[in-house]
Amino acid sequence: MAGAVQNVNFSKALPMNGGHGLYSYSKNSTYQKKVIVAVKDLITEAIAEKLDICVLSSSNTICISDMGCSVGPNTFVAVQNIVEAVLNKYQSQGHDHSRLPEFQVFLNDHALNDFNTLFKSLPPNRNYYVAGMPGSFHGRLFPNDSLHIVHTSYALNWLSQVPKEVEDVSSPAWNKGRIYYSSAGDQTVKAFADQFAEDLDCFLHARAQEVVRGGLIILMVPGRLDTSPHTRVVSNISYDILGSCLMDMAKMGIISEEKVDSFNIPIYFSSPQEVEATVERNGYFNLERLECLPLEKSQDTIPQKARAVSYHIRAGLEYLLKEHFGHEILDELFDSFNKKLEKSEVFQLGLTYSLLAFLKRKET
Amino acid sequence: MAGAVQNVNFSKALPMNGGHGLYSYSKNSTYQKKVIVAVKDLITEAIAEKLDICVLSSSNTICISDMGCSVGPNTFVAVQNIVEAVLNKYQSQGHDHSRLPEFQVFLNDHALNDFNTLFKSLPPNRNYYVAGMPGSFHGRLFPNDSLHIVHTSYALNWLSQVPKEVEDVSSPAWNKGRIYYSSAGDQTVKAFADQFAEDLDCFLHARAQEVVRGGLIILMVPGRLDTSPHTRVVSNISYDILGSCLMDMAKMGIISEEKVDSFNIPIYFSSPQEVEATVERNGYFNLERLECLPLEKSQDTIPQKARAVSYHIRAGLEYLLKEHFGHEILDELFDSFNKKLEKSEVFQLGLTYSLLAFLKRKET
Repeated sequence: MAGAVQNVNFSKALPMNGGHGLYSYSKNSTYQKKVIVAVKDLITEAIAEKLDICVLSSSNTICISDMGCSVGPNTFVAVQNIVEAVLNKYQSQGHDHSRLPEFQVFLNDHALNDFNTLFKSLPPNRNYYVAGMPGSFHGRLFPNDSLHIVHTSYALNWLSQVPKEVEDVSSPAWNKGRIYYSSAGDQTVKAFADQFAEDLDCFLHARAQEVVRGGLIILMVPGRLDTSPHTRVVSNISYDILGSCLMDMAKMGIISEEKVDSFNIPIYFSSPQEVEATVERNGYFNLERLECLPLEKSQDTIPQKARAVSYHIRAGLEYLLKEHFGHEILDELFDSFNKKLEKSEVFQLGLTYSLLAFLKRKET
Repeated sequence: MAGAVQNVNFSKALPMNGGHGLYSYSKNSTYQKKVIVAVKDLITEAIAEKLDICVLSSSNTICISDMGCSVGPNTFVAVQNIVEAVLNKYQSQGHDHSRLPEFQVFLNDHALNDFNTLFKSLPPNRNYYVAGMPGSFHGRLFPNDSLHIVHTSYALNWLSQVPKEVEDVSSPAWNKGRIYYSSAGDQTVKAFADQFAEDLDCFLHARAQEVVRGGLIILMVPGRLDTSPHTRVVSNISYDILGSCLMDMAKMGIISEEKVDSFNIPIYFSSPQEVEATVERNGYFNLERLECLPLEKSQDTIPQKARAVSYHIRAGLEYLLKEHFGHEILDELFDSFNKKLEKSEVFQLGLTYSLLAFLKRKET
């Protein structure tokens, strides 16, 4: 290995809220859980069809990594689905019990992630060995050819940074008066789209060294149809509403307008075409399957939905908001956010899709 | 893999103090660091002589685990020494730069260990990939044949539990009026010695499955000469003094005497003969070398030494003491402990040794 393993300053660490409190990620990620449960059958099918047992480890250990695992508990559901799918595949091919593989699972997230909470909630009767892997998945994390299956769910939508030009007053992409790209001008939207493509390319480039030939990446991100505009996505509308709440506070003199101008949420909702184009340009993986899956309609009332979205977004963004605006504004901000959500038409008009992609490491 | 990976309830988790505060382990483990630095040359020599490059990974990745790593920083020093020693060995055998191996390092400790602090202080320019491995090293942590070198320093002296008979009022080993074994009756001492042997056997049994044939365990524990009694060891004398401080508090009515009777420190200081006998009985490893190394004399004054010992012991025992007696007594306890240490003859009469053992996994 030539010199230092470089996994520093690849991307800004954006930890979800740790612990198990009211606004913790562990208590406010049921939406992401629904998505993971919904795709279980698709994952089982893909592993049955696409994963060649002969490419698996000669040492009889299957190495799996969930990248962007946060603090649980969803990561354990995802991992269990994959382990079961691989075991099913072995059994369906007539391998007897004594010849089943062992599983070593690496739960990855930024070094600032609350791994203490994650480790305290490891499932006690798990049928795999588990390690925590701190570091940015935009850079190298593992030795060459050491992983068989990579899973990443609702993590690559987080950008490694706010695109530089969006924060540059002299740039046409400067995002004045907003904290998000979706209702901004074309230049701003393009800056976010380019950052997403660049980040996904970095991710695939690092994984190309780490995943064995024939190994799989199961990649899931919240996204949108190729034909639907950014402004129709539920989360995007919500982020815009959150931005308008911050602008309200600026107008009331609680925070400065410059503070709002200089804050941007580093998230992007991609479309199938965008993911496909990046995978092809990257060149290391075959795109075996790409689905754009609508989320099942919820039976919750509008106030219930508003509250869930508000808590969910707080669990994800509190760290960034606190860092930029100070913690004093948080309760008031999310209170007004909740009210605006209830009055808005986001739940009638907005669309929610997940993109699910299966990539296979090329043989050459 | 047949069913669940069993790593639960193997041993009581005894986390060192986390974070970087006054009584944190990270700030009060310079003694352990001295030991690690002192044995660097011995480790380099052992790796050069005992490790066969041909038994190393066919995939060109060397897997190393430091077991009982706590929160740093000593674990990073130990790991770097080992990585450099292996690289030296490769280079001395004429391997050119492009054929040097990659290193994957697993830092292990109980799931209650403060991994967040550990991960935040990872060396930025490390030349190895690193993961955290939560769980008890008395049980299985890794897949079969997946490790090449295991290092454990000042961790196996912590017992998996207080021997049951020591806490049993009806047993001749009951440890009334004391919190430690070293000046207790023979039955109590034997109970601790047996627990140490049983724990070491569990450790070796688990490692025997995980370490490849020809792989190495570098095992270091604080210990004593075969010829020196338990009551001559600096740490043992100190624990007895701590016990006497607790008894003083019981006599003053601050805590109850029953509370003291039912508290025992789960630590044991072994001798070379004891380690050798357990390794032989276990049968999976050859004992390649076993040293009993005296600690270099410190030039510190008695008050400096007393303060260092007091802080050091607080960093290691605070969790247990707090759990049993409540946090209210801690400052007063360690204040009187510090004073008694200064007045005692521990630093004139006490001995301090480390046992360093190199074990090699047998071929069959």
